[in-house]
Amino acid sequence: MTTSSRGSAGRPTRAVTTALEGTARRTVLPSGLRIVTESIPSTRSASLGVWVGIGSRDETPAMSGASHFLEHLLFKGTHKRTALQISAEIEAVGGETNAFTTKEYTCYYARVLDEDLPLAVDVLCDAVADSLLEPADVEIERGVILEEIAMHEDEPSDEVHDIFTEAIFGDHPLGRLISGTEESITPMTRNQINGFYRRRYTAPHIVIAAAGNLEHATVVRLVRKALAGTPLDASAADPAGPRARKRVRHQKPHTVVRNRDTEQAHVVLGGVGIGRLDERRFALGVLNNVLGGGMSSRLFQEIREKRGLAYSVYSYASQYADAGLFGVYAGCAPGKVEEVLDITRAELERVATKGLTAEEIARGKGMVRGSYVLGLEDSGSRMSRLAKSELLYGDLMGVDELLGRVDAVTAEDVDAIASELLTQQMSLAVVGPFDEAEFGRR
Amino acid sequence: MTTSSRGSAGRPTRAVTTALEGTARRTVLPSGLRIVTESIPSTRSASLGVWVGIGSRDETPAMSGASHFLEHLLFKGTHKRTALQISAEIEAVGGETNAFTTKEYTCYYARVLDEDLPLAVDVLCDAVADSLLEPADVEIERGVILEEIAMHEDEPSDEVHDIFTEAIFGDHPLGRLISGTEESITPMTRNQINGFYRRRYTAPHIVIAAAGNLEHATVVRLVRKALAGTPLDASAADPAGPRARKRVRHQKPHTVVRNRDTEQAHVVLGGVGIGRLDERRFALGVLNNVLGGGMSSRLFQEIREKRGLAYSVYSYASQYADAGLFGVYAGCAPGKVEEVLDITRAELERVATKGLTAEEIARGKGMVRGSYVLGLEDSGSRMSRLAKSELLYGDLMGVDELLGRVDAVTAEDVDAIASELLTQQMSLAVVGPFDEAEFGRR
Repeated sequence: MTTSSRGSAGRPTRAVTTALEGTARRTVLPSGLRIVTESIPSTRSASLGVWVGIGSRDETPAMSGASHFLEHLLFKGTHKRTALQISAEIEAVGGETNAFTTKEYTCYYARVLDEDLPLAVDVLCDAVADSLLEPADVEIERGVILEEIAMHEDEPSDEVHDIFTEAIFGDHPLGRLISGTEESITPMTRNQINGFYRRRYTAPHIVIAAAGNLEHATVVRLVRKALAGTPLDASAADPAGPRARKRVRHQKPHTVVRNRDTEQAHVVLGGVGIGRLDERRFALGVLNNVLGGGMSSRLFQEIREKRGLAYSVYSYASQYADAGLFGVYAGCAPGKVEEVLDITRAELERVATKGLTAEEIARGKGMVRGSYVLGLEDSGSRMSRLAKSELLYGDLMGVDELLGRVDAVTAEDVDAIASELLTQQMSLAVVGPFDEAEFGRR
Repeated sequence: MTTSSRGSAGRPTRAVTTALEGTARRTVLPSGLRIVTESIPSTRSASLGVWVGIGSRDETPAMSGASHFLEHLLFKGTHKRTALQISAEIEAVGGETNAFTTKEYTCYYARVLDEDLPLAVDVLCDAVADSLLEPADVEIERGVILEEIAMHEDEPSDEVHDIFTEAIFGDHPLGRLISGTEESITPMTRNQINGFYRRRYTAPHIVIAAAGNLEHATVVRLVRKALAGTPLDASAADPAGPRARKRVRHQKPHTVVRNRDTEQAHVVLGGVGIGRLDERRFALGVLNNVLGGGMSSRLFQEIREKRGLAYSVYSYASQYADAGLFGVYAGCAPGKVEEVLDITRAELERVATKGLTAEEIARGKGMVRGSYVLGLEDSGSRMSRLAKSELLYGDLMGVDELLGRVDAVTAEDVDAIASELLTQQMSLAVVGPFDEAEFGRR
């Protein structure tokens, strides 16, 4: 399906619309901005997201945290709306709006009753396209962000993941904190952030996604109206493709200990993983679920069910455009760290050398399939799926195709990824009542 | 709609089924156990919950944490299944299962694809009705729970709420930790927990709820089959009504400080609230949303948007059968606590004496309505609504009736609850780098 139109501005305004899977549709505006929607007539709600393919890995060291700082500032006011108006307009109709920043993208979203989708489009497009970034607001929000950083430091089970990520990626942008640090946030100026905003938030890097009780053509019309005359409507360009894949240098395996006066020790053991577009990601999904993805997983059974050493223990895999990591987290008594690590290492080695049973592989596939299908029930998760497919993969993989890829994983595939990832020398991050020099010598 | 049947056991087996709102149905089994379901044909999933009207407030001081300890143990194995089998059977079909304990009830739940609902009913009913409570498992799980308690103590933004709750309710069972403490968990015996299990987990206190692509009669048949021959099928009784309302004694307002070496100070300021069945709960919902329920709220605007003093600031109201509390939470720099508290007190007083604007009341109503309607989109939240209505309210209030009650709230209603709750002498809980004797003297 292709439609075209000609506007009044004199420049080409051909919008190209394509049918995707099911009721999903994609329109590319002349500016290069993309709109993807999915109609779900059985729901009363609509979810909208403005997704920008810019995140903390696009920052220089001095600008560390700029994407996240900017995300906060875009809720502070436009030529049309104060900060209070932005939130009050959405909340008055019972909707909710918020935003989050990752290493590779930033998302501004709202969830509303279907009849209020026009309002949500107008408010979010206004906030993202036309923010004032008033100097006084930059100063106020700097305080908020410093509190957010401090709050995060009071959550050792989160902090240990940041430390582990830095252990893997070092001073590569993927190794830095999304929030930045007190040292980078304190001196960052309004002009620096505004420059980042205007250079980075361009139409080809933006995907607007919506899912719910809606019509695609209506959403396209609403978005075009909301963006008319803003910087996001200013030029003609092609959409940016998925982020270029460059070779990412990893750190040599090492141990990082952060001394904190906590009740538990929080540890992550792991190493280098695979990138988002790696074909082996389906096999890794199966492996990760069996290893530490649920209550039936090896690590949960060995560490919690059989020995009662931890309340929280799991494995995970993070994937970026061109790199990834995997790790095992556990929170345990400080005196039990070595025992937990010994069990974990033994289990990783057992899986790497002996593989998984046929029953485990079948269960791992079931877990991947189930979390995917059950995770697509609300309009918000469907909206996210559309946006991430477009922004990160450049393509929407249909549900059936994805389930087929999971089904096609063989024991050999799982063995291959296990023997590659689980046999490497690993890094270790620890937060707890330990001295770095002393740790590991006990 | 009423159906009846007669079984083979010789005792009366009349099951009474009633139509509720929409597609919701309720069946009372001869044992007094209730089954409530809602059919949602547009979804592919089904959510199941076994809800037991027993929680931490049903414990003596020596047994503090028994409900939660038992919740853990019910996943450890039955005559038919090991712990691994319980989780593996659900996870192999892509489902998820878990449980949680509150002060007044305990819930065991699973979410699966619709075709796997029979499996979920069989597994959850087996786990809840026929657990072995093996002594060795009690010892292992004791370690897990002690780690859970330690983990919680590493989360100061959670811990401050527990301290505040204790400041309001003191040594009343509502004031105690759901998890119990190291002191109560360490000596608790298998026989004590088993006694609690067998005395408390009786059919009249249990509601089994399901929502999704299902048929009520099928669920009733599956539950009866799964419970046949278990202690939950043993006797004839009427369902228990909602928990009796007794007069709850509150503590005199006071300040509690817990010294922790945290980056932020975490504070809760508040006092006595209202009970769950109090007619003023709708007015309180409106008040709470405008005061501190969203980004447009008074406290968010004053403390975060205008002054940048906190990242997280909100108000909340907790309701129990016969008592409640409300509080304002903020996480801020330790040196800013007094300023944040001054602003909070001033805002509470302003609302108590001058009320809210018409625009704010309209917005507050929109927020209550929206969170309610948007919160009913997935099968899990619909299942919870059914179960809580049956267990805690004794009645399912229809969506339209509930929205009507919200619409009917007047400015006078809001003023009345505000002037009652917000003018009381308040208690204060603080977690942060403070000495208790020193706090407040600066």
